[in-house]
Amino acid sequence: MNQRRIDKIMASLKEAGLTQALLSDPFSLTYVTGDDFRPGERFLALLLREGQKPALFLNRLFFAPHVAAENIVPYDDTERGALKVLPLIDRSRPLGVDKKMPAEFLLELQEKNAASGYVNASPCVDHVRACKDAEEIALMTRASLMNDRAMLALRERVREGVTEIELADELAGIYRDLGADGLSFPSIVSFGANAADPHHSPDGTELEPGQCVLFDIGCIKDGYCSDMTRTYYYKSVNDKDREIYEITRRANEAAEAAMKPGVRYCDLDGIARKVIAEAGYGPYFTHRLGHSIGQQGHEWGDVSSANTEQVRPGNIFSCEPGIYLPGETGVRIEDLCLITETGVQILNQVSKELQIIE
Amino acid sequence: MNQRRIDKIMASLKEAGLTQALLSDPFSLTYVTGDDFRPGERFLALLLREGQKPALFLNRLFFAPHVAAENIVPYDDTERGALKVLPLIDRSRPLGVDKKMPAEFLLELQEKNAASGYVNASPCVDHVRACKDAEEIALMTRASLMNDRAMLALRERVREGVTEIELADELAGIYRDLGADGLSFPSIVSFGANAADPHHSPDGTELEPGQCVLFDIGCIKDGYCSDMTRTYYYKSVNDKDREIYEITRRANEAAEAAMKPGVRYCDLDGIARKVIAEAGYGPYFTHRLGHSIGQQGHEWGDVSSANTEQVRPGNIFSCEPGIYLPGETGVRIEDLCLITETGVQILNQVSKELQIIE
Repeated sequence: MNQRRIDKIMASLKEAGLTQALLSDPFSLTYVTGDDFRPGERFLALLLREGQKPALFLNRLFFAPHVAAENIVPYDDTERGALKVLPLIDRSRPLGVDKKMPAEFLLELQEKNAASGYVNASPCVDHVRACKDAEEIALMTRASLMNDRAMLALRERVREGVTEIELADELAGIYRDLGADGLSFPSIVSFGANAADPHHSPDGTELEPGQCVLFDIGCIKDGYCSDMTRTYYYKSVNDKDREIYEITRRANEAAEAAMKPGVRYCDLDGIARKVIAEAGYGPYFTHRLGHSIGQQGHEWGDVSSANTEQVRPGNIFSCEPGIYLPGETGVRIEDLCLITETGVQILNQVSKELQIIE
Repeated sequence: MNQRRIDKIMASLKEAGLTQALLSDPFSLTYVTGDDFRPGERFLALLLREGQKPALFLNRLFFAPHVAAENIVPYDDTERGALKVLPLIDRSRPLGVDKKMPAEFLLELQEKNAASGYVNASPCVDHVRACKDAEEIALMTRASLMNDRAMLALRERVREGVTEIELADELAGIYRDLGADGLSFPSIVSFGANAADPHHSPDGTELEPGQCVLFDIGCIKDGYCSDMTRTYYYKSVNDKDREIYEITRRANEAAEAAMKPGVRYCDLDGIARKVIAEAGYGPYFTHRLGHSIGQQGHEWGDVSSANTEQVRPGNIFSCEPGIYLPGETGVRIEDLCLITETGVQILNQVSKELQIIE
């Protein structure tokens, strides 16, 4: 159990007027306990309550090697796990629950009048998880370093006639050789006009000279994710591609240059969007600037016009402007960015200069 | 929209005393609409209510090409999707909800007194989905045929010194060449003592003569899953392996021979377990006999001692007894089984005779 993280969550709950909450998001449980969980259909939750020791409700099929026995309330498949919570809840007060707790379990608690009310307590947990601590920053830095090395190795594999799927498959081997634990999302490899679809799935398209080569890739290492995009050109680059590449790069760099505590997420999105719009490609930047990332590839905290919160030290999110010209070509340039006390640290080190692969 | 499936679900709800329900499981929505959904964080649900046309609450970011406009209630990210449901619910009656509906949305509905009560309606939907209709049976049959062909192709790749990971990677290519859409679960390739862990992840173990070669593999095709296990022996088989192989095969075949409408799931588990126990290996058959399968690799309907329901025509589930000798070896033989009006049809055609790969 990570007491520091528990304390932060308890403080955040208290600010929201809550004295007790039931965490059920498996990633939140990993964050707090250090153990991995895949509960499937089964009830799994951690009760945090003021003045009481944390209690993990855990089916006997699962193990939590980092959790002391005194913090575990075991149950088996002959019991209703959610009901084991009842004796430990203060029924006279509201109970915070995870936004994704399955209705099945919430309904069971409500039928038994487990608490005086039920509140979505996820914002309290999400705010804490969004500010990475030193240990998490070290893991995120390492995952991105691994991703940098994978990008350079993948770039070496680019060759005439290779298909998108072949490169995506080879990338899986590259990650494995580097010691990654898996992908943080299905790798995107897009040639030429395929790059106009931001979420293109690699297919049998064969690489031809003059096409762009977009790699949007990420791996997981020790529970934390990386995510980076680079767009290269094969043998040559035409004027249109060069133009939209440089606009996208300026958008990426302008947003990154503005990053520091106190700036709002929406402002960062606006800075990148303005660069692209002023160059005449506004309608072709069709998505938000980025997303927060950590244990999951996408975490709470959009870098979009809708998010008016300020960024804070420890926040890690992507900066990934793009320009997509349907039927023609596309470009995206993405780094992971860590907000520091005074500014920003870019976690990716792979050059963003326009590069032609010979 | 598949009106026949909707009618079946409405009838099932009615039996449970419900006149209205909000389906949110994306697989249930695919089942009813024919469209695929990945709603992520966003509210997505289909309201089924007696005497009212079905209403799909759909964020404008998503599309449902098979759903008529009159059945769609669109909303965007500036609106609370769950609240769009309110005008269409009968507030004086209870509302069925999916067991996995995120608490976030259920709490919103409850705050607004959307209904007179809230009931887990998933059993009603699960019972209907568990009885595959003709269209689903055709798709499941095809996915298993593809899996048969993959198993035979994979068997051809077995060679001295090959690693488990290499074969798992090659299988991905085999599936792709056969036209599969993806894996229904991470492929299991286990050599020798690794086969003693039923959920072994393929690693760098190199194949040696005399080892068993266990393949537990499955693919997805057109939204439906396959899943099959065969255990082979490389170059030779020792007496212990031969013994446990034949016991496992008898267990598999005894359970399959007993399959017909009206038999209970627990009885099937018991029949296979008895064969293994009587041969002295009871403690080494450490899991249930099988699981239901369809759009998802594991669906509602365990083939275990805990499930006292009767099997019905259209049910499709796995029959996968195994014997696991820690540190030594393991064996599992698995088919998918379709309950017909009079008996059973085994969806896998790959031989279960003990085979030594030269």
